[in-house]
Amino acid sequence: MRLPAGFTASGIACGLKPSGKPDLGIVLSDRPAVPAAVFTSNRFQAAPVQLAKRTIRRGSARAIVVNAGNANACTGKRGLADAKRMARLGGDALGIGADRVLVCSTGVIGEHLDMGKVEAGIAAAAPAVSADGGEDFARAIMTTDTRQKVASAQASDATVVGIAKGAGMMAPAMATMLAFVLTDAPVERGFLTEALQRATKVSFNAICLDSCMSTNDTVLVLANGAAGGDPIAAGDPRADGFEAALTEVCASLARQIADDGEGMTKLVTIRMEGCANEREARLGARAIADSLLVRCALNGGDPYWGRILAALGTVPFSFDPNAVDVWMGGEKLAEGGTRGPGDADAARAAMQGREIEVRVDMRRGAGSAMLLTNDLSVEYVRFNTEYTT
Amino acid sequence: MRLPAGFTASGIACGLKPSGKPDLGIVLSDRPAVPAAVFTSNRFQAAPVQLAKRTIRRGSARAIVVNAGNANACTGKRGLADAKRMARLGGDALGIGADRVLVCSTGVIGEHLDMGKVEAGIAAAAPAVSADGGEDFARAIMTTDTRQKVASAQASDATVVGIAKGAGMMAPAMATMLAFVLTDAPVERGFLTEALQRATKVSFNAICLDSCMSTNDTVLVLANGAAGGDPIAAGDPRADGFEAALTEVCASLARQIADDGEGMTKLVTIRMEGCANEREARLGARAIADSLLVRCALNGGDPYWGRILAALGTVPFSFDPNAVDVWMGGEKLAEGGTRGPGDADAARAAMQGREIEVRVDMRRGAGSAMLLTNDLSVEYVRFNTEYTT
Repeated sequence: MRLPAGFTASGIACGLKPSGKPDLGIVLSDRPAVPAAVFTSNRFQAAPVQLAKRTIRRGSARAIVVNAGNANACTGKRGLADAKRMARLGGDALGIGADRVLVCSTGVIGEHLDMGKVEAGIAAAAPAVSADGGEDFARAIMTTDTRQKVASAQASDATVVGIAKGAGMMAPAMATMLAFVLTDAPVERGFLTEALQRATKVSFNAICLDSCMSTNDTVLVLANGAAGGDPIAAGDPRADGFEAALTEVCASLARQIADDGEGMTKLVTIRMEGCANEREARLGARAIADSLLVRCALNGGDPYWGRILAALGTVPFSFDPNAVDVWMGGEKLAEGGTRGPGDADAARAAMQGREIEVRVDMRRGAGSAMLLTNDLSVEYVRFNTEYTT
Repeated sequence: MRLPAGFTASGIACGLKPSGKPDLGIVLSDRPAVPAAVFTSNRFQAAPVQLAKRTIRRGSARAIVVNAGNANACTGKRGLADAKRMARLGGDALGIGADRVLVCSTGVIGEHLDMGKVEAGIAAAAPAVSADGGEDFARAIMTTDTRQKVASAQASDATVVGIAKGAGMMAPAMATMLAFVLTDAPVERGFLTEALQRATKVSFNAICLDSCMSTNDTVLVLANGAAGGDPIAAGDPRADGFEAALTEVCASLARQIADDGEGMTKLVTIRMEGCANEREARLGARAIADSLLVRCALNGGDPYWGRILAALGTVPFSFDPNAVDVWMGGEKLAEGGTRGPGDADAARAAMQGREIEVRVDMRRGAGSAMLLTNDLSVEYVRFNTEYTT
């Protein structure tokens, strides 16, 4: 995977992960890039999130320094000082201002960073950046991920490349997820921000793996304009093409994250249709994805439509329970809120595969939404019981 | 366990449970009783819930007929006709009007009742009622419960006895739970309803096992006045004593349910203190209990306070993240939103026991709330993957 023009990256091991695996990555742009970001809405915002928000506000960035193995979250004033020091160390090592360095962290909550290791890591990673370093960077930001998550798309002359991590603590708005999207397209800042928000809504905010929202979630875009041309703004003839490429990359990364959920055995698409509006569609999909009983049934490949209805029945708006249809594995198992004409055996057979679709029609309007989720497995519990402090 | 004066009960097997275990129970009062009830707020209300609401509205009841093994939920018009037929069969067998018979069902969703079995079951259970039949009744209403749930309390001359079932699909407002509280106290209807609502709030609505709300949840009180005296109304000198006994019985049943959660290995009390008000305290406790990552950590007896904060950070109100303290296993592990002075090893040792307390102080006011929950275990997932359609 080649990075867009003007970007280089690296990833090395500095000992933050007890396993000795790569745990510190750097992305550098050879020129100032326009940044845009979406952050977690968790009220405990990790120190690097607090700092990155300020950096984004300045409107220009050159580099991203990321560590895995420690989230630097719930670490108080010392944590914020550590995040600032990471930015300073990165800026010094890369020969740029600390205020142009975005810092991200992921890993255990509540522990202070070992700044000696971070300092040595930055010193090793900074000179190692290269145009081919995207894979190393992708490896260095992984935590419980079983594989790297990379996506790319073209927008006329420009390239959009995304690199992400995330496998658990996943809920809309958002996941324990870091996603970095790099593009050599020239993009005006306001349009970049709006395009990212729209892309996030249908990608990262449409996955719900374990209903847990992290303290560190960050989606970051850097547009450095190295492909040449005037900045793309809203209404520009190139705007739709760029936004389509950005959305394609975000959607691919989100799907890769959902497909690598901790302990997951099924990738489940929940499609809500016929809702009064999009908000109700999202609430309905979320109620189904949040249900442990639904997700256990999916784990067993069991077409238990009654659990889908029972979960849907908890939404905070009223609807006609006698006008709800449910399809699982392509079979219409519920019709009008009771058993439908579909073939349960055929549904069960279809649900033995890795991908399952649950479709619900509420017969109320044209509102719809899509949500990606997983089954709940014995392995998920085992894993998260053992992933300890 | 002896039922209050004037009540008799029975429980028999009629073949609704494939296991052949008892699955049909009857409670009879020898005189009209004042009923009060709290039902599920799920928008898919099972047929027996729809019917019982009408019966309660009439203000007088004589009997309860309950089946386990089939919830008669999401069963459409035929399901409602089946519930009505159960009431009629019960009334005929007991020699009372069908409109005085409350019907409840619990079990699998979306299947029609085998009315032949129900009819034979009612015919067998009706003549078997006795003052000592409470235990048989308690056994007959069990589904995934591993033990019967019974509680009793005295209120001067009157007795309050509660019998409940419930082990999974448990969330405030409410659980897959049926609870029947019988008393020979004479109680005025309005006061009985209000006292039940208050008692439910601090008992059944303060347990959250798997965040799933059922289609069939019902808490039902019958007060038949057989102990003698004028009806107790609000302001009566006996009112507080009666309500205390009712609350004690409900709280005991709720705790027994939490202590029998599917696959649970830990009984967890979440205490929210120092909140701006009770509403915020409840939302905070619920956010913690809903977190799969918190519940996995509790399963491992791991004092991972960072997950408590991350879960709390998802509440829909703002607060100062630097003013939150967390105790686990009696140790103050977080203080001011970061690591506290408590001894993590001591907390871990304390958390190896079956009962765990998580206490959170938000330093905002005098609002508080308590919630009972469980850990999330491999056994829970295994169990609910296999409890199939």
